[in-house]
Amino acid sequence: MNITIWNEYRHEQQNEEVRRVYPDGIHGVIKQFLLEDGFESVVTATLDEPEHGLTDEVLNNTDVLIWWGHIAHDEVSDEIVEKVKRRVHDGMGLIALHSAHYSKVFRGLMGTNCGLEWREADDKEILWVVDHTHPITQGIDKKIELDIEEMYGERFNIPEPDELLFISWFTGGEVFRSGCTYKRDKGKIFYFRPGHETFPTYYHKDIRRVICNAVRWAAPVGV
Amino acid sequence: MNITIWNEYRHEQQNEEVRRVYPDGIHGVIKQFLLEDGFESVVTATLDEPEHGLTDEVLNNTDVLIWWGHIAHDEVSDEIVEKVKRRVHDGMGLIALHSAHYSKVFRGLMGTNCGLEWREADDKEILWVVDHTHPITQGIDKKIELDIEEMYGERFNIPEPDELLFISWFTGGEVFRSGCTYKRDKGKIFYFRPGHETFPTYYHKDIRRVICNAVRWAAPVGV
Amino acid sequence: MNITIWNEYRHEQQNEEVRRVYPDGIHGVIKQFLLEDGFESVVTATLDEPEHGLTDEVLNNTDVLIWWGHIAHDEVSDEIVEKVKRRVHDGMGLIALHSAHYSKVFRGLMGTNCGLEWREADDKEILWVVDHTHPITQGIDKKIELDIEEMYGERFNIPEPDELLFISWFTGGEVFRSGCTYKRDKGKIFYFRPGHETFPTYYHKDIRRVICNAVRWAAPVGV
Amino acid sequence: MNITIWNEYRHEQQNEEVRRVYPDGIHGVIKQFLLEDGFESVVTATLDEPEHGLTDEVLNNTDVLIWWGHIAHDEVSDEIVEKVKRRVHDGMGLIALHSAHYSKVFRGLMGTNCGLEWREADDKEILWVVDHTHPITQGIDKKIELDIEEMYGERFNIPEPDELLFISWFTGGEVFRSGCTYKRDKGKIFYFRPGHETFPTYYHKDIRRVICNAVRWAAPVGV
Repeated sequence: MNITIWNEYRHEQQNEEVRRVYPDGIHGVIKQFLLEDGFESVVTATLDEPEHGLTDEVLNNTDVLIWWGHIAHDEVSDEIVEKVKRRVHDGMGLIALHSAHYSKVFRGLMGTNCGLEWREADDKEILWVVDHTHPITQGIDKKIELDIEEMYGERFNIPEPDELLFISWFTGGEVFRSGCTYKRDKGKIFYFRPGHETFPTYYHKDIRRVICNAVRWAAPVGV
Repeated sequence: MNITIWNEYRHEQQNEEVRRVYPDGIHGVIKQFLLEDGFESVVTATLDEPEHGLTDEVLNNTDVLIWWGHIAHDEVSDEIVEKVKRRVHDGMGLIALHSAHYSKVFRGLMGTNCGLEWREADDKEILWVVDHTHPITQGIDKKIELDIEEMYGERFNIPEPDELLFISWFTGGEVFRSGCTYKRDKGKIFYFRPGHETFPTYYHKDIRRVICNAVRWAAPVGV
Repeated sequence: MNITIWNEYRHEQQNEEVRRVYPDGIHGVIKQFLLEDGFESVVTATLDEPEHGLTDEVLNNTDVLIWWGHIAHDEVSDEIVEKVKRRVHDGMGLIALHSAHYSKVFRGLMGTNCGLEWREADDKEILWVVDHTHPITQGIDKKIELDIEEMYGERFNIPEPDELLFISWFTGGEVFRSGCTYKRDKGKIFYFRPGHETFPTYYHKDIRRVICNAVRWAAPVGV
Repeated sequence: MNITIWNEYRHEQQNEEVRRVYPDGIHGVIKQFLLEDGFESVVTATLDEPEHGLTDEVLNNTDVLIWWGHIAHDEVSDEIVEKVKRRVHDGMGLIALHSAHYSKVFRGLMGTNCGLEWREADDKEILWVVDHTHPITQGIDKKIELDIEEMYGERFNIPEPDELLFISWFTGGEVFRSGCTYKRDKGKIFYFRPGHETFPTYYHKDIRRVICNAVRWAAPVGV
């Protein structure tokens, strides 16, 4: 199975605070824990590479694409966006992390604007599992607790998920549909909320477990 | 449209604290606000009446049945439960309130045991609207705030709702799928979480709005 | 309630056979039966008008938009497509008829390519109602029979519908999810399969009933 | 993984025509093809055994239960039905075949009466795949053709399936939701329509493929 991790990779280069948390980029940390979990073919791609690192060759050889973007959604070229969407239709899995809810790729696949309520904060977040039968929630007990995270709140303008796996609670009084699956033609999509760039979320063992599970679930059948 | 409100009506008779909040029973308060909202034909029925007040004549003339029960689910006769379920299949709407999640009627219509996490508490509850297009959420802004309520938490052992309308937040750190619709043959069902017997929840204008909306939505087509 | 019927209106002008069936255009026939059903504000718009007849004023005053297109999907400007999608997000209902499955508007709202199996034919089509509780199927018995229609077959590349209302049977051995509802932010969408331009489908009383029902269902709440 | 195949096993003993097709019972044929597919622990149980062959020991050791019943649904004891339902809630997978739609177990798990239109016939049946991403449809091309089968038609009184995988076409003009998944607490359920006792349906390689796939899908996580 071939995995490509796409990261905007701007915060880490521009912001000392973020660089301290993710010195090799968010993509670097994700790559490392995927390798540790037994995945063998994991590559990364970032916005400022030619074609954003997503050449036809890369895309055509990707079984599951992980996407993290935030401040530069608009800089992703429409042509690449179309190619990514077409590959999802053809069967490539997509894991959209955190602020990727607002990426052109995700919005284009959802058909909604994917807006949400939002507050930069240091809330505690608790993600409750609402479906214990699903491959993506395996190895997770009743909940995942994150001591500090940014707040995303309802109403989240997404289509009704095919499956709702996690609901988040935040100190400030909000809730959020934090883990949602969708199918778009042959492609499987998982949106997973946590992962603000200033917090060490991607070092949390349960967050890693969910992402590793999601990659296996999203892979095209037969891979 | 003919509405029947069924209430177990035990807490109010046995417990001074509850009686202070609902001197005429929970069914009495619900009946009153339905009448104030313009419904004309509203009757009540309680556990200790013959046939629990749900004779064939009553059931066959009921378009929407509202159900509140808690400590005496087991005392509801299986024969009446079967009749109620059959009427739902034939098109009668059902509004299951609060601890009715564990009634034989609701569990029988869901096919699950409908268990949940639970804590008798005086949490604040905030119900967030996740579907603003639905007739049941009309007139409600982004959320409903209840200063004091009992806590129900995930994982709530229900089938995936046809539509998820509300998600609750509780002070203690829990979340809950608080407003869920289902169809069972010709009958429409709405489960709505709030309404612990010691709190004045059914006097809250937004809770009343939701229940009135739900009655109109759940009525059989053509009524 | 303000209804706008958008029609590509090319077949009727270019093809004598189609003109015989719909001398005033498909939009003309739909407008007429909507007026007969009691709707009062019904306007039409067509591809070759300036801005395809969908000026900001028209769109901003439209509660429900009906869309029929086929051979000129690509000629609809991306700018207008974006405006229509935004209006749906803001609450405008959309009824996509027949070959509108492949319009930019519908595909953009679905997030899939919306392809299907297809055979120009004179099959008999039978649409079976699979949800008798829904406002859109009211007044329809178990099925709708169309003596002659074009064939659309599975696999239809759409997201799992929020609600599946009709399934079609065709003489040639195919089936199709013929009546599908979706929500996209505040907007409600109904896709309804029948309506090939060479057949008198839009004169069939049950087809008219479904479209009239769908308009009422798709209207924004409060209209 | 431990699989138990439950068969009513009456037709085969009472009816010469059925015995010719399934001399060792429908359960015998299913057991054989599961073993050929690599499953190692496969046992059978039938109605007329003590406790219908479903002792606590058998049930507690069953990961996936396959159910075929038809003329003797009422002879299955309510006590065993309750145990089976509880095991499904606890995670045991259930594959309900053909006329098992009307078994007490399936109806109890659905919450509807699960009625359908029906005609004993020798129609051709074509099952169209509507979800190519699902593990249960792997290895199946666009459709499965059965030269001769009994007809089941809509409206099928089931809850909206979590996932709809197959839709059937019948010569006589009917359609049917033939492959439906549900979750009930920790248990996964698959209903699969084909399999009338007088026809050699369970010898068809695609039908066998679907059932083998379904067993793997329905197994509790971790088995």
